[in-house]
Amino acid sequence: MREIITLHSSRREELIDITIEVKRIVAKSGVKNGIMSLYAQGATSAIMIQENWDPSVPTDVINFLQKIIPKGVWLHDAQDGNGDSHIKAGLVGPSETIPVIDGELGLSQWQNIFFCDFDGPRSNRHVVCTIMKDE
Amino acid sequence: MREIITLHSSRREELIDITIEVKRIVAKSGVKNGIMSLYAQGATSAIMIQENWDPSVPTDVINFLQKIIPKGVWLHDAQDGNGDSHIKAGLVGPSETIPVIDGELGLSQWQNIFFCDFDGPRSNRHVVCTIMKDE
Amino acid sequence: MREIITLHSSRREELIDITIEVKRIVAKSGVKNGIMSLYAQGATSAIMIQENWDPSVPTDVINFLQKIIPKGVWLHDAQDGNGDSHIKAGLVGPSETIPVIDGELGLSQWQNIFFCDFDGPRSNRHVVCTIMKDE
Repeated sequence: MREIITLHSSRREELIDITIEVKRIVAKSGVKNGIMSLYAQGATSAIMIQENWDPSVPTDVINFLQKIIPKGVWLHDAQDGNGDSHIKAGLVGPSETIPVIDGELGLSQWQNIFFCDFDGPRSNRHVVCTIMKDE
Repeated sequence: MREIITLHSSRREELIDITIEVKRIVAKSGVKNGIMSLYAQGATSAIMIQENWDPSVPTDVINFLQKIIPKGVWLHDAQDGNGDSHIKAGLVGPSETIPVIDGELGLSQWQNIFFCDFDGPRSNRHVVCTIMKDE
Repeated sequence: MREIITLHSSRREELIDITIEVKRIVAKSGVKNGIMSLYAQGATSAIMIQENWDPSVPTDVINFLQKIIPKGVWLHDAQDGNGDSHIKAGLVGPSETIPVIDGELGLSQWQNIFFCDFDGPRSNRHVVCTIMKDE
């Protein structure tokens, strides 16, 4: 069972919490046990599991990545001006796989699922959610 | 088939080799071909595949992460004092998926599976191991 | 269904585009919907999803990793001289999972699949490709 989440971002670099949408897809699927494979389409986007108790953590993530991967100093900037966005996306990575346990996502209390845009704002970003059932 | 490994850590930052436990779960499952999905529960923990021929490699990993993500300089430190732990966990990531080949984990000779604690010591950490059988 | 891609690298650090090979395996499998789990065997290698429109992006990735993880300053260098290779491999990670949608890999337009060698040149590197069918 597969469903695609469509989102838009409003800043160049933004972490968007999609936990509620992914939990809704798990509930709708009826799958009790297995895995949920998440995949961010877009070579300047990624998926990160991270705390969302307050906005300081996603902001720290963006600030950290800007510090180690500054804007404007890459070969690819001559083409698109987004060399830093590609390095960030490749380093964080587009895929995470989360267990489904008794019909629920197997996240711990403080783990949330974030779609990361590193080259926004964009109006049409996609996360492919594939649930694989463990018989 | 799913099994949960429970562990404790004894230092703030520690890489704990869980390869033997994961291999035991593969053998117990009877699955010959498919994938083993590993997931670290805890927003300050992660899974890393890494060499364990001698302790220098996991120590180098901890020293490297401390250097690029120092303690005490993050917005989230005002709340919990563990801003660095969250960034490390998000960057390394909680999930890795390893093939199961002829009843064995498809690791290469020097690849081991490490649970990474970035905010220990903790008495009750969990890694969810889900084996999906490829018919 | 599983197939193993064998490759060789020609430089110490090299990103090799394997997208065409992985697409061929998806087509050959006949699987219409599910996931493709990719796994790089080798504790100094990894898988990265990245743009390949021009060679600047993979070169930027190698230059970035060399900058934050320099050669020759790690404890493990006393054993093998490749401490940096191990840290790079662990950070990027050996596994990525990509959806299979209507018989095609669910990559976006600019996403390509790269095998990363961080300790080449090597004559015999392996990427395990496991397709799991979603009934």
